[in-house]
Amino acid sequence: MDNKRKNELINIYREGLLEDILPFWFPNVIDEKFGGYMIIRDRDGSILDTDKGMWTQCRFAWLLAKVYNTVEKRDEWLKGALHGIDFIVKHGFDDDGRMWFHVTQEGKPIRKRRYVFTEFFAAKAFAACARASGDEKLVQRANETYQLAKTYLLNPDLGPKKFTDTRPTRGLAVPIIRLGVAQEMRLNLEDDSYTTEVDEAINEIRDYFVKPELKCVMETVGDNGEILDHFDGRTVNPGHAIEGAWFILLEARLRGDDPDLVQLGCNMLDWMWKRGWDEEYGGIYYFRDLEGKPVQEYWHDMKQWWVQNETVLGTLLAYLITKESRYAEMHCQIHDWVYAHFPDKKYGEWYGYLHRDGRVSVPLKGNMWKGPYHLPRMLLNGWKWLEADLES
Amino acid sequence: MDNKRKNELINIYREGLLEDILPFWFPNVIDEKFGGYMIIRDRDGSILDTDKGMWTQCRFAWLLAKVYNTVEKRDEWLKGALHGIDFIVKHGFDDDGRMWFHVTQEGKPIRKRRYVFTEFFAAKAFAACARASGDEKLVQRANETYQLAKTYLLNPDLGPKKFTDTRPTRGLAVPIIRLGVAQEMRLNLEDDSYTTEVDEAINEIRDYFVKPELKCVMETVGDNGEILDHFDGRTVNPGHAIEGAWFILLEARLRGDDPDLVQLGCNMLDWMWKRGWDEEYGGIYYFRDLEGKPVQEYWHDMKQWWVQNETVLGTLLAYLITKESRYAEMHCQIHDWVYAHFPDKKYGEWYGYLHRDGRVSVPLKGNMWKGPYHLPRMLLNGWKWLEADLES
Repeated sequence: MDNKRKNELINIYREGLLEDILPFWFPNVIDEKFGGYMIIRDRDGSILDTDKGMWTQCRFAWLLAKVYNTVEKRDEWLKGALHGIDFIVKHGFDDDGRMWFHVTQEGKPIRKRRYVFTEFFAAKAFAACARASGDEKLVQRANETYQLAKTYLLNPDLGPKKFTDTRPTRGLAVPIIRLGVAQEMRLNLEDDSYTTEVDEAINEIRDYFVKPELKCVMETVGDNGEILDHFDGRTVNPGHAIEGAWFILLEARLRGDDPDLVQLGCNMLDWMWKRGWDEEYGGIYYFRDLEGKPVQEYWHDMKQWWVQNETVLGTLLAYLITKESRYAEMHCQIHDWVYAHFPDKKYGEWYGYLHRDGRVSVPLKGNMWKGPYHLPRMLLNGWKWLEADLES
Repeated sequence: MDNKRKNELINIYREGLLEDILPFWFPNVIDEKFGGYMIIRDRDGSILDTDKGMWTQCRFAWLLAKVYNTVEKRDEWLKGALHGIDFIVKHGFDDDGRMWFHVTQEGKPIRKRRYVFTEFFAAKAFAACARASGDEKLVQRANETYQLAKTYLLNPDLGPKKFTDTRPTRGLAVPIIRLGVAQEMRLNLEDDSYTTEVDEAINEIRDYFVKPELKCVMETVGDNGEILDHFDGRTVNPGHAIEGAWFILLEARLRGDDPDLVQLGCNMLDWMWKRGWDEEYGGIYYFRDLEGKPVQEYWHDMKQWWVQNETVLGTLLAYLITKESRYAEMHCQIHDWVYAHFPDKKYGEWYGYLHRDGRVSVPLKGNMWKGPYHLPRMLLNGWKWLEADLES
């Protein structure tokens, strides 16, 4: 990857973030009447559902604070972030300290889930906004919310359970969310105690989910890391594992390109690229079976936007750290494929859900899960990582 | 539809049931070691997962008893049905009387769900086996299990709740399962008290879900039947509504072609056929939005086997009752489409999950939901309804 290509990519990512993605959402999604953001949008930006998903509230507040902290100190971004924080604080929490997953436009609760992903996204939003605003109360709230989320994450018996104790399992989502959020907490709160969190999460990934003998990162394993020869045990999620891979590569970079972490991250990327890349149509599959058997989820071969976003980042960071040309080629391959299929040329932003062959399945831009998060994070990180590389 | 076509269809359905579908599963799925059935099968019939879904255990026990009761008194079918009942009684129930959704091969519990569908399928299996075996204990068990399921169905506050009370909703699944199971209970237990159940279920469908002004059968409405302008409220499931339509047409037939019920069933079929039929590729879509907006489920446009099975039955029964040629044409259209796309010519049985254009998504034959139920029920009912029509 020569400097010309790097500059081209920087332009694509920066302009994508600042001139396409952010303006699609902001300030349009600000709900002046009831607070928070109205994220659930059709292709053209019109409102599809007035309800609010707390994941997307937290993630967009995080994003606005993040661009404020790292791109430019625009007042409107800080104001927009704190507007979301306000709604989250007022309407996001149940009496037990846990958070809601789904609320009405007014903020009345509809649904709480067993999982504490909302709480982790909230902690991350509080931390980024604490840094942006200098508000000490947000530092405290960030730490408290992280601790609550961690407590439930590591003690699933505290909440209602989905499964009996017959076949105890571990999910890759647990260390991945912990790792990614702890990195942001440490950065934004300037609190090195979160490095312990990072280390524990990476160790859990390495010790339980990474299987060199199978060249695979498992998504669900037995409590001791054993392979479970059932649907859930065999189903792997390449984009999710590759997201974990770049969190680890980012940590490697922070530790002077720590060779063990570089190796771990690159292995995870290599194996899951091989399992995930669709040789016939291009792009990364959503789910694959460890042994190539049918998976239970019949939408397994669709191309989700976030899976591709994480793969763009994983291949790019692997290249920037190792300078191995094959990673530049992989990055080029996934970058070109996603830019050929995902952007909506008429209304801007990206589609989220494509069929295997790249045709659009549902053209909506926002729902309870898709919102301004994975894509702008890809654009921001891609831009900043390349810029730092050119300057180094 | 002339008699030649009727006889052709009778042959297709009878042979499909007796020479393709039943032999694919039986006696192969009998688990001699741990009891019950091993339903989770790959395309070629090999085992994909040793776990057992209680829906499929109950549904296959019902099917074997049903063919014993209505086709031929083959001992192996009765023995096979009771083999499943044994496992269901031994391993299907939790201490609170509720049933498990997912157990291991040995019958150890993995997961219980909030919904009481398993309990309804069990009641139906007990009732069919009671009739087949003459065992009075099964009559009692059938009635008890039905009552338990009904109690939880009509009092969702008894169990853990998925949603808060902010926006109370009703789901079409509630009256449809109640209606379909009550009809089978009445038939197999020869107990006319279940007609009250049937009436209440039909009234709920008509009063809350059927919307003549929209020409639509809703899948989820507000507690008073109001349209909810949110993803869940706008999403309709044509195949599910058409399943309800033929339950109602069947009831009409039992009541001397009761004109109100015929009209209700035909309206439901007409509206949902119009909303569900894919003009471009054929077949009935899985989900549609009331207003043609994007639905949240990105697998909305896939062609599920059971959706097509119910539509074959709905159009056929509407034709046999009304003799309107358009229903014969609709039946021909859906029948031809499914036979062109679903049967596995190499290993027998049908695929379950096709992409919109009819290509196979996952080739498996059985999982936690797909098993020998909707398809053999289509074949059995289609055969028997046509035969009765010829004889009338």
